[in-house]
Amino acid sequence: MPNRQIQLMQNARAQASFHSQELTDVIYGGAAAVEKRREEFRRIEKLLGRSDTRKLPHIYGESGRTEQYVDGLRWGAATFRERLKCGESWFDAVTPHHWMNNASPFGLHFLMFTPALKLLASPEQLEYWLPLAESGRIIGTYCQTELGHGTFVRGLETTATFEEATDEFVIHSPTTSSTKFWPGGLGYAASHAIVMARLVIKSEDYGVHPFIVQLRSLEDYTPLPGVELGDIGLKLGHNTNDNGYAFFTHLRIPRTHLLMRSNQVLRDGTFIRGPIDKLAYSTMLFARKIIIIRIYFQLAQAATIATRYSVVREQGNIAFDSADNAEVPIFAFKLQQYRLLTLMARAFALHFAGVHVGSLYEARLAQQERDDHSELAPVHALLAGMKAYSTQVTADGAEDARKCCGGHGYLAMSGFGQLVPTATAIATLEGENFVMYQQLARFLVKCVGRAEQHSTTEYLRSPNTVSDISPEADLLEPTVQLGIFRHRSARLVVECAEALLASQQEGLSFAQAWNKHILSLIAAARAHTETVVLTAFIDSIVGVQHDSVRAVLRRLCSLFALSSIEGPNGGDFLADGYISNVHLRPIRESIDLLLEELVPDAIALTDSWNFTDACLASALGCWDGDVYERMMEWTRQVPLNVDVRKMGGVFKPGFEQYIKPVLRAKL
Amino acid sequence: MPNRQIQLMQNARAQASFHSQELTDVIYGGAAAVEKRREEFRRIEKLLGRSDTRKLPHIYGESGRTEQYVDGLRWGAATFRERLKCGESWFDAVTPHHWMNNASPFGLHFLMFTPALKLLASPEQLEYWLPLAESGRIIGTYCQTELGHGTFVRGLETTATFEEATDEFVIHSPTTSSTKFWPGGLGYAASHAIVMARLVIKSEDYGVHPFIVQLRSLEDYTPLPGVELGDIGLKLGHNTNDNGYAFFTHLRIPRTHLLMRSNQVLRDGTFIRGPIDKLAYSTMLFARKIIIIRIYFQLAQAATIATRYSVVREQGNIAFDSADNAEVPIFAFKLQQYRLLTLMARAFALHFAGVHVGSLYEARLAQQERDDHSELAPVHALLAGMKAYSTQVTADGAEDARKCCGGHGYLAMSGFGQLVPTATAIATLEGENFVMYQQLARFLVKCVGRAEQHSTTEYLRSPNTVSDISPEADLLEPTVQLGIFRHRSARLVVECAEALLASQQEGLSFAQAWNKHILSLIAAARAHTETVVLTAFIDSIVGVQHDSVRAVLRRLCSLFALSSIEGPNGGDFLADGYISNVHLRPIRESIDLLLEELVPDAIALTDSWNFTDACLASALGCWDGDVYERMMEWTRQVPLNVDVRKMGGVFKPGFEQYIKPVLRAKL
Repeated sequence: MPNRQIQLMQNARAQASFHSQELTDVIYGGAAAVEKRREEFRRIEKLLGRSDTRKLPHIYGESGRTEQYVDGLRWGAATFRERLKCGESWFDAVTPHHWMNNASPFGLHFLMFTPALKLLASPEQLEYWLPLAESGRIIGTYCQTELGHGTFVRGLETTATFEEATDEFVIHSPTTSSTKFWPGGLGYAASHAIVMARLVIKSEDYGVHPFIVQLRSLEDYTPLPGVELGDIGLKLGHNTNDNGYAFFTHLRIPRTHLLMRSNQVLRDGTFIRGPIDKLAYSTMLFARKIIIIRIYFQLAQAATIATRYSVVREQGNIAFDSADNAEVPIFAFKLQQYRLLTLMARAFALHFAGVHVGSLYEARLAQQERDDHSELAPVHALLAGMKAYSTQVTADGAEDARKCCGGHGYLAMSGFGQLVPTATAIATLEGENFVMYQQLARFLVKCVGRAEQHSTTEYLRSPNTVSDISPEADLLEPTVQLGIFRHRSARLVVECAEALLASQQEGLSFAQAWNKHILSLIAAARAHTETVVLTAFIDSIVGVQHDSVRAVLRRLCSLFALSSIEGPNGGDFLADGYISNVHLRPIRESIDLLLEELVPDAIALTDSWNFTDACLASALGCWDGDVYERMMEWTRQVPLNVDVRKMGGVFKPGFEQYIKPVLRAKL
Repeated sequence: MPNRQIQLMQNARAQASFHSQELTDVIYGGAAAVEKRREEFRRIEKLLGRSDTRKLPHIYGESGRTEQYVDGLRWGAATFRERLKCGESWFDAVTPHHWMNNASPFGLHFLMFTPALKLLASPEQLEYWLPLAESGRIIGTYCQTELGHGTFVRGLETTATFEEATDEFVIHSPTTSSTKFWPGGLGYAASHAIVMARLVIKSEDYGVHPFIVQLRSLEDYTPLPGVELGDIGLKLGHNTNDNGYAFFTHLRIPRTHLLMRSNQVLRDGTFIRGPIDKLAYSTMLFARKIIIIRIYFQLAQAATIATRYSVVREQGNIAFDSADNAEVPIFAFKLQQYRLLTLMARAFALHFAGVHVGSLYEARLAQQERDDHSELAPVHALLAGMKAYSTQVTADGAEDARKCCGGHGYLAMSGFGQLVPTATAIATLEGENFVMYQQLARFLVKCVGRAEQHSTTEYLRSPNTVSDISPEADLLEPTVQLGIFRHRSARLVVECAEALLASQQEGLSFAQAWNKHILSLIAAARAHTETVVLTAFIDSIVGVQHDSVRAVLRRLCSLFALSSIEGPNGGDFLADGYISNVHLRPIRESIDLLLEELVPDAIALTDSWNFTDACLASALGCWDGDVYERMMEWTRQVPLNVDVRKMGGVFKPGFEQYIKPVLRAKL
């Protein structure tokens, strides 16, 4: 006879209106891909001893800096081998816990080092380096950020000075603030790095270029003379990774280690500017694409954990009957339904948008191979906006999901202890989000009034001129929802363009005008991105095969749209009266309706992501719902408790040194 | 000759329009209090070896569960002794790192155990227990939450069954979900606990009552027979504290250990209901008051760290001049000014509101002593709303401040690694925020239409009926700002009351109607709280002595008001057209003006909080601005780096076991 929590979970799971497996196939692109992925996780989890979910996951035991790093090396090595075996692998971009893989000391090898080679190396260079990288005979990282310099790449200080006599570049850190700082694996794991440094020839500065630098001896792994390497210490998360620092003192590399696909330096020091100017940035574009098509899995995981917990966690008495002490599952409360189902809706919205943006990126890359760069600007802008939006929605959503779990969400064993800080990191790395939104805004204001538009900005050419929508409009109608989103973003973008112009006519420089209107510009970029996301979501549903699956996705899509209008960031929709108080009531009623329809599908939706218990690593989010028993089993396995039991129930060191003196304090 | 960062800080500090010391006196209530506080911090920091800020703070070295706990015991014992010496002490409610003190294993002794005694014990009981507590001969905690039960106190399962034969109560945990879970210090530090349990006499359940339970022998500190004690494992923060669990198996205590200030049980088992029904809840009210008057210090700290970092951190080229690689301090960017100064404004708003609410609480307590409970309902409601609002604004703000520091904000040594999770914890503990808002909402809808109003709800009686404000209204005028806030919250509260009524007339039960309108109810409660905060802020400034200080506070107050209208949560202001697009432009222009005026005062504002470098424990937020040198000094002191230097630059264990096999992998 299953206990109460398990029963509650079984009941909740039984109510679904669709087969979760069918939605799983939609998410991962077919049954075959689903099975391949499942197999990979099974192999890795077995290898890492994570198959028994009654065992306290190692990461929730002791958590010393060194232990966490060793744990990262342990599963990093396992996934690294997996990748070498299988060629392309799920674990390129995610860890066994489904985080972005720069939580692994080896993660950047496949996430940035190898891609950078393919993007930046000349054919001859690629022929030499790629086999070494892909066979794992070297372990690479990507080395750009410095202690004093981040997103603004032009500000980097590290120099690579050409010395004609020896045909070498001298890599050097001229100041403390030029110390390379942050790259994953740089501390102790990587043997090589692609180092971004200022190319200097005959004391002329040619700007930032990529160089391959060997950091450690491949014999005993000692750092090469001329480089100090180390770990940057504890972080909010990612402590399984040795994000490191490198301080160069006249380290010499061959001239041929400048990656010369575009710009080149000849034997005599002649600099030849290649065709592709912005090539050095394209590694960042690749990394942003990966983030966009993977980050939302962390939101889906967070929503999965919190939703499963909410159907078994009983608290409060919904009838406000002070005589009645019976409690109900917190998922019975509409606020909880609203919070969790909107998070789930966002996860799906980001999924379909990610697939869409990913295909745009691939198309552009193919185009670049043909030396056609017309798509670079719009795709670069869109990637920037999507990177900011998807990571922001994921980080905020994961945190809200944690709060949906009340106090227990604050336990490491909830899974949120790793999930939230890992998600939140991505909001900053690979381009700070507010900077990203500004890059998109730059592009959008340029688009205003143009006849030629990119597919994603088409709607800016003819901004919806209807002054407001009728109160009778069917708010569940995709076209109506799109109309509302397009009207808002078009209005905000056009207003920004006008404001910038007006301020410049009042005598401000473009930069001053930009700084003055920066808040509106960011709001406009965010609104445009949200419009792109909704469009992708709506378009993607059309092709879904099973009616029942399409129906639930339609509801999620409408919930995503309407909750965005009615929610905290919805002020923009109201500002010009296109939407007003008149519409808020029907919008709220439509949301109520959608929630009623979606509640029975909540658990099936969590199942559709097909997360293993091991990869969720959450005592609250386990598939079977057996929360409390598992929590106590895990708690009793906490090493500190195991040790103290051996000491007869007293934490001896602490008692002798600190508690006893306090207790005995004579006053 | 100071380095560049130090110079930038000196320049920024020199621009202030007021003496930070004069504002410090306002914050802490006079020069004497400031000096006393400064002295306390000096003593404790010396005692803990934290005076030399060039040394890596211990907490940023190794971070094993056990090490963190031992560190907590170390400074917990130090502040505990301080408290015993000085009687009332700053360290009642904060740690040396300025967190709420339930990050100390001994924190709840003064934060809840002793207050609970004063509130719940009979005079005779107080006479016996208080001296033991205040002399530290026992160490107490407060034991309410259970594994399966939290905010809904009536749901607690732990039983205290009266046994007439032995004149004892039997404390028992009937189920796994009834395990006491979470109380600070319960794991290994506390000797006694006030345990909330269901009072059962002759198998009749009289509901939850407070009992004093001894947990450990005062000789060798072993757990008493009948109780299993342990730590609940790693958490997102607060790992310096042994938040613990307790599982009771027929543990016996004398009948007289029921705290009998109100309800009593006589020798023959007769139950006598006392006058004060809700007394058992008053310890939570006290704890909420402490949270409200202390939590915002964490927001002020976060804003201090991020603002100081922003004046020395140079990034980007404000002129968008691609030829120019010179960078500017990020505080030159208006977005950064807006984010940081609004955070600072909120910190001050919460400060003055906290002082106001604190005085209302004290007045009510005095009233209760006279057995007058008329203020209980309104103060309970206000405390609930303020607890939710202040912790939410602090947690969100601390996180935003972290993001303002870009990548480096993600380092533990930024200080945010402890600050953010500690702040965010308070949003859940002592009453989950959404539950808190609902408690206030319950009170507010009852107030609608009443002739009798509490001082804080007075404005609900005559809601501002003006349909909109004139576009010419002076938005910097406090009365105009108040009018806008009152109109919004009055409108939302009245709409909720009407909606509840309408839904009930449509046949819903009150509970169903409540659940249906829960989102609006929470929005209304939040809006009302914000109105109370703005009112307190405005009122408090009037009494400030120095003109220059009053002027800067006025600007912060206006920035708080206007940024709330224009910001993410501002949609409610726009919904009924009282404020519309017409006003948004002048509001934005007023905000621009305020930012221009406040920017020169930014560093002086951080100084006015008078945080020591040791209590900030941040390499980014140090007073002198010497960020990069300190970061590298601290980084080189990271134990992992010290160890690896001894190993010749190679992390031997990791290399031998994981890296070497990968590198050598034959394929």
